[in-house]
Amino acid sequence: MDKLKLGIIGLGRRGTVMIKECYAERNDLDIAWICDNDEDKLEEMQLFMKEKGHCPQTTLDYHDILNDSQVEAVFILSSWESHVPIAIDAMEAGKAVGMEVGGAYSLRDCYRLVEVQQKTNAFFMMLENVCYGRREMMVLNMVNQGVMGDIVHCAGGYRHDLREQVANGIALRHYRLRNYLNRNCDNYPTHALLPIMKVLGINRKNRMVSLVSVGSCSKGIAEYVNKTGIGKAEIEGKTIAQSDVVTTVIKCAGGETITLTLDTSLPRYYSRNFEVHGTKGLYVEENDCIFLDSEEMNENKDFPKKLYSNADDFQEKYDHPLWKKALEDGLTGGHGGMDGLITDAFVYCMKNGLESPIDVYDSVTAMAVTALSEESIATGLPVAIPDFTNGAWLIRKEQPNHIYSL
Amino acid sequence: MDKLKLGIIGLGRRGTVMIKECYAERNDLDIAWICDNDEDKLEEMQLFMKEKGHCPQTTLDYHDILNDSQVEAVFILSSWESHVPIAIDAMEAGKAVGMEVGGAYSLRDCYRLVEVQQKTNAFFMMLENVCYGRREMMVLNMVNQGVMGDIVHCAGGYRHDLREQVANGIALRHYRLRNYLNRNCDNYPTHALLPIMKVLGINRKNRMVSLVSVGSCSKGIAEYVNKTGIGKAEIEGKTIAQSDVVTTVIKCAGGETITLTLDTSLPRYYSRNFEVHGTKGLYVEENDCIFLDSEEMNENKDFPKKLYSNADDFQEKYDHPLWKKALEDGLTGGHGGMDGLITDAFVYCMKNGLESPIDVYDSVTAMAVTALSEESIATGLPVAIPDFTNGAWLIRKEQPNHIYSL
Repeated sequence: MDKLKLGIIGLGRRGTVMIKECYAERNDLDIAWICDNDEDKLEEMQLFMKEKGHCPQTTLDYHDILNDSQVEAVFILSSWESHVPIAIDAMEAGKAVGMEVGGAYSLRDCYRLVEVQQKTNAFFMMLENVCYGRREMMVLNMVNQGVMGDIVHCAGGYRHDLREQVANGIALRHYRLRNYLNRNCDNYPTHALLPIMKVLGINRKNRMVSLVSVGSCSKGIAEYVNKTGIGKAEIEGKTIAQSDVVTTVIKCAGGETITLTLDTSLPRYYSRNFEVHGTKGLYVEENDCIFLDSEEMNENKDFPKKLYSNADDFQEKYDHPLWKKALEDGLTGGHGGMDGLITDAFVYCMKNGLESPIDVYDSVTAMAVTALSEESIATGLPVAIPDFTNGAWLIRKEQPNHIYSL
Repeated sequence: MDKLKLGIIGLGRRGTVMIKECYAERNDLDIAWICDNDEDKLEEMQLFMKEKGHCPQTTLDYHDILNDSQVEAVFILSSWESHVPIAIDAMEAGKAVGMEVGGAYSLRDCYRLVEVQQKTNAFFMMLENVCYGRREMMVLNMVNQGVMGDIVHCAGGYRHDLREQVANGIALRHYRLRNYLNRNCDNYPTHALLPIMKVLGINRKNRMVSLVSVGSCSKGIAEYVNKTGIGKAEIEGKTIAQSDVVTTVIKCAGGETITLTLDTSLPRYYSRNFEVHGTKGLYVEENDCIFLDSEEMNENKDFPKKLYSNADDFQEKYDHPLWKKALEDGLTGGHGGMDGLITDAFVYCMKNGLESPIDVYDSVTAMAVTALSEESIATGLPVAIPDFTNGAWLIRKEQPNHIYSL
């Protein structure tokens, strides 16, 4: 297969990690362009790329990439605010789009993404690496095999102590600080939600109907700034709009419920607290346990401690075929293999003219939770979740059956 | 100290367990009466009591107990529906009341409990044993010492596979089945909520302001009946009103949020998924871990697995004094010691004229979540939580400092 001729837009934390740990190491990508607002980042990355044997052109203006007729695809790894405008311009210019994760600022942006993708028929995929996480795929595999029964409830979260990253936002040239100062919402729903949406068949015979979000007080960042002095000049005396913890409960057409938690400004270990609960079984990430409705488990009184980490025991039987293969072949890319796998999926599906595993409908449905949670917190009321498929969810079929299907 | 002259009302599952494992073994209780609707239960229990050296009178009518001027207190362990009417009659009759846990069917019942307690000045305590659980008290102790910082978010749940108990309700003469067939709410909020209320100082300078509840579909019981045949005659063809999972999010006056989960009709291990998250630390029951905001923890990448069960390491330093003493003295009563401790607390506080550790305000605030969650699920809207103290929460002081204080 020919290499995928690619432009990469955004050389911040995520862009840098992805290039260094994943993209620059691959032999199926021809990285033709790199783009960033900051010249120093461009220079630094170009040096690195040359050492790795790549010769990308550099630009401060992503339109230069879109105007290059040789470029087949762009990966958008820039600030949250720029994802949608760039994705729309790229699809209009006939490029395939891999868009990094983030939430939507407005429903209007979601509708625009859908309508431009429909008009251009561009290959569009949200680069939600967690969809290709080992546990997430194993649980999806178990659900698809019926091991968990009918799924009734799921939970997930982005629970990550980002205090340093937020408070130090100016120095890091990072977009979180301005968002935390001025907005209150689940600003990062997709890590938790997209894998759950796959478990529940959202946009394919199921859909998310409504949500309600509740935000806590905001104390973590202020206390951190006060204690460490980091970000003092920019933050002290200002009010942080963002709740330390935002809890969102989603109701689906099939009656399933989803509890989402954003929890990013208090001290804690990293967790996505993924939980899938069906009529025959349960997976809980927090203690990495699988509970099945069997006599042996139901009569054992030593649970839950005895179950800690028992999901490891199910790997041989239920690991997703993609992960079995990846572990045999040797994992590449960052984040424990997820970054490599989602890049594989993008290249494979796009080059073979297959449906996107995380298409524009899935992407905007997950992203919309940010704008909708903002509305719900502001009004104190539940809000309806739009049907971005305009009814097509009732008739859309499963994805074609291949190893990257979700 | 004189023995507490006591009547026990309700000899179902809970009443039987409490008498056999706790009350009959104690030397500070004079069990003068036992009462139940069913003669066979009365006869069976009287036989057991005689073997243990007790000679209670028996009655089918609890008013006989209330009319006995020698009786100081009643413990109410009957069906959910009867808790409030009996408690009100008992307080009106000048008895102290220990009332087992359950939810309120209406706000009116909550107000009546408060007003009768105020009028009679009776000693009233909800027998919420989980408030005296070892971890719950250790975490409360850590919170009170400031180790967790300002608390921002808590979670809790009653996550207990009750399928057999619900489906087999007629044979067991149990009250859950009629409730599950006809109501949809968080029908059992207090195990999770009362310990959290203590952590957050609810009704003493803080209060719960509003909640919203979302209910899942109901599939667990029907599938269980279909698979096992248990309860088939009573349930097959009927609709179970009760959601398998009810998620409730509560907002407090101090800005804290609480996520409550009722999860009782799917296969699972038992959990109350207690979680307390502050600006300096975190406790998570699901993996029994404590995370503190220290350099060592923040820089360790092996979390969360490395933290599983690490709360054990904090016991020597932070176990609640009551638990340290109880472990030295030897635990009595059921449920890992909690039942004995809450009975100790009742007897000690009542006999010494101390405030109830779980007084009528705390009790109705927690119980009201049942009626309010029913309303929220029915309407799809958030609801306000009444201030049952009528403003007194702003000026009420901490409980007097003794070993049973919560």
